[in-house]
Amino acid sequence: MKKHNYSAGPCILPQEVFEKSAQAILNFNNSGLSILEISHRSKDFVAVMDEARALALELLGLEGKGYQALFLHGGASLEFLMIPYNLMKVEGKAAYLDTGTWANSAIKEAKHFGETVVVASSKAENYNHIPKGYVVPSDADYFHCTSNNTIFGTQMKEFPSLEIPMVCDMSSDIFSRTLDFSKFDLIYAGAQKNMGPAGTTLVVVKEEILGKSGRNIPNMLDYVQHIEKESMYNTPAVFPVYASLLTLQWLKNLGGIAAIEKVNEAKANLLYTEIDRNPLFKGAAVAEFRSNMNATFLLNDETHAPIFDKLWKEAGISGLPGHRSVGGYRASMYNALPLESVQVLVDVMKELESKI
Amino acid sequence: MKKHNYSAGPCILPQEVFEKSAQAILNFNNSGLSILEISHRSKDFVAVMDEARALALELLGLEGKGYQALFLHGGASLEFLMIPYNLMKVEGKAAYLDTGTWANSAIKEAKHFGETVVVASSKAENYNHIPKGYVVPSDADYFHCTSNNTIFGTQMKEFPSLEIPMVCDMSSDIFSRTLDFSKFDLIYAGAQKNMGPAGTTLVVVKEEILGKSGRNIPNMLDYVQHIEKESMYNTPAVFPVYASLLTLQWLKNLGGIAAIEKVNEAKANLLYTEIDRNPLFKGAAVAEFRSNMNATFLLNDETHAPIFDKLWKEAGISGLPGHRSVGGYRASMYNALPLESVQVLVDVMKELESKI
Repeated sequence: MKKHNYSAGPCILPQEVFEKSAQAILNFNNSGLSILEISHRSKDFVAVMDEARALALELLGLEGKGYQALFLHGGASLEFLMIPYNLMKVEGKAAYLDTGTWANSAIKEAKHFGETVVVASSKAENYNHIPKGYVVPSDADYFHCTSNNTIFGTQMKEFPSLEIPMVCDMSSDIFSRTLDFSKFDLIYAGAQKNMGPAGTTLVVVKEEILGKSGRNIPNMLDYVQHIEKESMYNTPAVFPVYASLLTLQWLKNLGGIAAIEKVNEAKANLLYTEIDRNPLFKGAAVAEFRSNMNATFLLNDETHAPIFDKLWKEAGISGLPGHRSVGGYRASMYNALPLESVQVLVDVMKELESKI
Repeated sequence: MKKHNYSAGPCILPQEVFEKSAQAILNFNNSGLSILEISHRSKDFVAVMDEARALALELLGLEGKGYQALFLHGGASLEFLMIPYNLMKVEGKAAYLDTGTWANSAIKEAKHFGETVVVASSKAENYNHIPKGYVVPSDADYFHCTSNNTIFGTQMKEFPSLEIPMVCDMSSDIFSRTLDFSKFDLIYAGAQKNMGPAGTTLVVVKEEILGKSGRNIPNMLDYVQHIEKESMYNTPAVFPVYASLLTLQWLKNLGGIAAIEKVNEAKANLLYTEIDRNPLFKGAAVAEFRSNMNATFLLNDETHAPIFDKLWKEAGISGLPGHRSVGGYRASMYNALPLESVQVLVDVMKELESKI
């Protein structure tokens, strides 16, 4: 039976990425060797890394604007500490917007390095919205925000205009919507949502903001070192980088971010319309801040859960249970999830209504 | 044509690892989903991580001896800094044995954290041997060594007995030879030699040595955090961990480290015997310290290189050129390289002799 994978991440990727990457494990570029056994310094893999870095910048519209793209180890969680290490001055401070669990983890890690000002938080309302009207101190070394909050299903629809560097964790919505990415000085994203499988992290950084923290940075945590070594400071995660390249190529062939944004809007509209229409359900996040990537919703009457769970499982849906912090359901609709899968879920929600 | 892959890493893995991992990308455990799209919190992947951790300890003979196995991000290069962060006291010091490029990188990273005593170095002789007779200061917080030096083709045949914690980078020979692994308090290894594809790093640590550095350790760099979260502090590199598990299962089925050690000795004996016998070649490393994993050798007359290079390429050999620091040739004979491939190389060396 066809599966409809709503997993929050790692998550569905394009079918052609599965097919091409499985083939590369058996025979990469007709070399007679597996992509798992080739040197990262081989011509074929250097070409993969170079293309992946260039394509990331191209898709974001950041070519020739002073940015470098890196595919690093460690997940977004390693960036939580690399960012203050590289950007927070020794006696300086940083400003953070607290919009969810991951923003909070980034804040905790920054506190190991110095003064960390939380400009606003929606924690008291279980992160069901994005704070507004906050003031970012103009003497902070940088401002950090999280564009999409996977767990709570909220998404920043606008970003402040600042004189200080703006850093954004886009792990769960990068490459999903058009933005003026040149507003940001550092963007990072764990691969395992819209970019590829788990195991690599994209960092896009404006070079001019680096080298100013005055800290004694270990080489492996120093963005300058990674840039100098063209994202090969040490052996990169070869297969995750390759599968990420395949995913970025798929996106480019579709028409890039502008094209996928329309699909993502259609999927989100379809599902949110049903959540709002169907008397059995309610959305978890404040409507104005609803994420187009992760729709969080609840049954108005929890006793309907067993029958709803049975229905969606029978329809081939997986990965729908909500995170324990919110409960209910979470439909993650990343780039590779087809509109058809959302229709299947909406049909199940209607079917539940007809049965109650 | 059959390929004989002598790549120094990433390197050859067992054929069944390629086949099973390619299959898992198309359909993992008959779930109808790819291993690239499942949650790392899914029951199926938690089972992979648990088995990989347990099997690593089992193969090393360290079960029930107070050790924890972790599959982390970042490569050995991240361990270069995690080790001093976790083990070097704030006003303490660490002792390092300098046996090659990677040992040297570990030393450079440790210097960011405090006093780093180099107890001995073979750098002046281009790392062609392992120093002997060095003294490890008994007041150091730990002693760090590198069991096998991939670039120079040397291998530590004995290890000191110390009262302080002993840390060993076994990236290029872990799981290749029997050792009393309980002599070590922390063992680490990038996966991409004998354990799996690039993208994950095994850390085996004796829990009792942790929590004593007095440092303010960022969570993501804190071994205690990774142990508490059962190697899932953040999303692990799902596919590299899975392929590593397949490789460890292959090794167990072969009979474990003792069984592969015999194969590795046979391969090394075959090649070194030819290097010593054949008047056209000479070994690069001092014989006593020759590595069973990476054999470095040179032509006595460089003008024979074009014909030798032609011959081994025609025989289906790849990855044989030496590292630029040594020149000549390097035959990396990791666990998955069959004896047959070494015979092909030896035959080519004999053929060269017959043609000169």
